[in-house]
Amino acid sequence: MTHAPDPRLSINQATIKYAPLAEALQVTAAAGIGSIGLWRDSVQAASLPEAVRLLSGSGLRFSSLCRGGFFTVPEGPARRTAMDDNRRAIEETAQLAAAGAPGSVAVLVMVAGGLPQGSRDIAGARSMVGDALAELAPEARAAGVRLALEPLHPMYAADRAVISTLGQALDLAAPFDPAVVGVVVDTFHVWWDPGLTAQIARAGREDRIASYQVCDWRTPLEADVLLSRHYPGDGIIDFPGITAEVERAGYAGDVEVEIFNQEIWDTAPATAVERTIDGFQRAVAPDLARPAGARR
Amino acid sequence: MTHAPDPRLSINQATIKYAPLAEALQVTAAAGIGSIGLWRDSVQAASLPEAVRLLSGSGLRFSSLCRGGFFTVPEGPARRTAMDDNRRAIEETAQLAAAGAPGSVAVLVMVAGGLPQGSRDIAGARSMVGDALAELAPEARAAGVRLALEPLHPMYAADRAVISTLGQALDLAAPFDPAVVGVVVDTFHVWWDPGLTAQIARAGREDRIASYQVCDWRTPLEADVLLSRHYPGDGIIDFPGITAEVERAGYAGDVEVEIFNQEIWDTAPATAVERTIDGFQRAVAPDLARPAGARR
Repeated sequence: MTHAPDPRLSINQATIKYAPLAEALQVTAAAGIGSIGLWRDSVQAASLPEAVRLLSGSGLRFSSLCRGGFFTVPEGPARRTAMDDNRRAIEETAQLAAAGAPGSVAVLVMVAGGLPQGSRDIAGARSMVGDALAELAPEARAAGVRLALEPLHPMYAADRAVISTLGQALDLAAPFDPAVVGVVVDTFHVWWDPGLTAQIARAGREDRIASYQVCDWRTPLEADVLLSRHYPGDGIIDFPGITAEVERAGYAGDVEVEIFNQEIWDTAPATAVERTIDGFQRAVAPDLARPAGARR
Repeated sequence: MTHAPDPRLSINQATIKYAPLAEALQVTAAAGIGSIGLWRDSVQAASLPEAVRLLSGSGLRFSSLCRGGFFTVPEGPARRTAMDDNRRAIEETAQLAAAGAPGSVAVLVMVAGGLPQGSRDIAGARSMVGDALAELAPEARAAGVRLALEPLHPMYAADRAVISTLGQALDLAAPFDPAVVGVVVDTFHVWWDPGLTAQIARAGREDRIASYQVCDWRTPLEADVLLSRHYPGDGIIDFPGITAEVERAGYAGDVEVEIFNQEIWDTAPATAVERTIDGFQRAVAPDLARPAGARR
């Protein structure tokens, strides 16, 4: 049995993907973890009112909802459907944040979306993301929800996220109030970026870091590159360096471990949570200088 | 049968990997292509003098040698071995360029190398690349060879190339004479980069473009991400846009098609060359405005 996990550790539900919501909450709380990030499919499978009830009863903080976005759709019925779905995600985020323990944050993680079907116009796709943020920002503000734009690794640029760097995400967020539009720093997506140190510092100055997510990169990549994430410390990412930069940038919130990996999904959720704690304590926790609860 | 290929098309030998050197030259020339980029393993399998003889007899231009580099080795015997191997590559490049038809260029493509074994220090690895260029540049100059630093896609940053963007490659090249250290623009590696347009223009201003290589990106990626390249036009890369930018930047040299793909390797070399011509003529050639031979 490991010692008590760092109070800022949050389990992102994707790490224990096969656990239904009630089990995910139970396993997380039983391990002594204080916070959880949820996924919409799981929340919707339980129903939003039931998810609110379960989360409230768990005693856990709520650190994010994954995910909104997928904005790279030309104007028309499909785009309207996507925008309406994002409106529901905003509402879900607000209700879940209100149901979580004190220190919960109303953060909705946004993934940009890839190139539209048949398109080779990445600049055009990127502009669709900015347009969508402009449309949703007033509604997010009204709901007290922060939209957190997440740059994804460039290997996903064609089919998942045309926003590939923290700098790009900050450029897109720039027109908006930082309380309404922020960014996600996910080590897996940004570790390679030669501009990372400068962009994390900029994200701090501009008050944009809405979430810090951690998992590791290891080669060879899995055959399905979506599932190629690992426990912190099991790969080559410099967690002490990046974590210290995120701390210096002023981020004092929960730190989510978000892993997509078939082998980890195939282990018992409680085991995966214990392994997560173990990796986090060794690779990430030593550089988390600020006390839990010292949020802005 | 397709019509005559664009005079600036060059077959990079990797596209027909299983053809020994003599066959690669024969198939390329027989298809009406004027230029070829060679790989060291193939040249060494034939022996350098024999490769020089075969190339000279083929009537083809020589557009590059792949590849030197793999510089991310700490000082010690292993680094000395790597540097000596790069010296041999410089000599091979000089001899092959002299043996090729008029218009040949003495370009040695350099891949940075990944993180050293057991290391998580990407900044340190990057500095090893700069050190190696400083050591080799005088020897390249003396041999009349241009070292062409190639940024690789960030999905290869851990195990193959800690230089991931054109901007980084240009920063590393900056201390050196552009005639001695240039960069490679390979569409597969850089298409996603939000800074691409600006960095291609900068590469032109700084006179650094030593090679323009093309192949396409398609999802889902192959299980081995090294082999996930496709014929130009078969994926989502905006060849007209990028090619026009490279042209505006002043590049007037040969354009190599370099594809690593098991399925393409498993087709007969002559067939792969015909498919290459077909893709190139449709996706790339229309935007090659300058006449062949109009090199600086």
